[in-house]
Amino acid sequence: MSDLTDKKCEACTIDAPLVNSVDYPDLLKELEDWSIEEESINKLVKSYNFANYADSVSFTNKIADLAEAEDHHPKIVLEWGSVKLEWWSHKIKGLHLNDFICAAKSDKIFNSL
Amino acid sequence: MSDLTDKKCEACTIDAPLVNSVDYPDLLKELEDWSIEEESINKLVKSYNFANYADSVSFTNKIADLAEAEDHHPKIVLEWGSVKLEWWSHKIKGLHLNDFICAAKSDKIFNSL
Repeated sequence: MSDLTDKKCEACTIDAPLVNSVDYPDLLKELEDWSIEEESINKLVKSYNFANYADSVSFTNKIADLAEAEDHHPKIVLEWGSVKLEWWSHKIKGLHLNDFICAAKSDKIFNSL
Repeated sequence: MSDLTDKKCEACTIDAPLVNSVDYPDLLKELEDWSIEEESINKLVKSYNFANYADSVSFTNKIADLAEAEDHHPKIVLEWGSVKLEWWSHKIKGLHLNDFICAAKSDKIFNSL
């Protein structure tokens, strides 16, 4: 597991630095199967699959707990069979290191289910 | 509150009838601020706003409980400040009366928070 999970989100101010896109590949290597959707705002996204609805709801709640603990809130798309997460930093309209930290912690939560 | 909330979803088979689109307006009148996104698959959608994250997570869980009770599972998009619901019937690739029933029940849950 990536040591990103040892980090904690820092307060993200409007002048906080975006992650330089040249660093995306190295950061993605520290995660499991995440990708970056490069649209008007870059987002770090991953879909997790579940064999039953209860497990997907449980995972959603654990991610919500993480969001509150880190004071950083992703888009969570809960459907039967899957949960899709999208992490990005609203204030800087793109990817902050916080997003990679939260992605790594999301994987850790999934792997501990 | 609509009497749709007194109904229960019926088992939706692959040959179940789609709601005729001429009936959309009357059914939408029984709901509060829902709209129909007419794409390749028509979906019944609504965004609910929340002043805090805990309430949005609580609402998400109540909708998940409804989904299990009705054996009909929407797309739930949970973000800080909002929960967007999308109801449609996968087997018939469109809107069944079940979707309007679940939309009405979603409103009832929201209004009881």
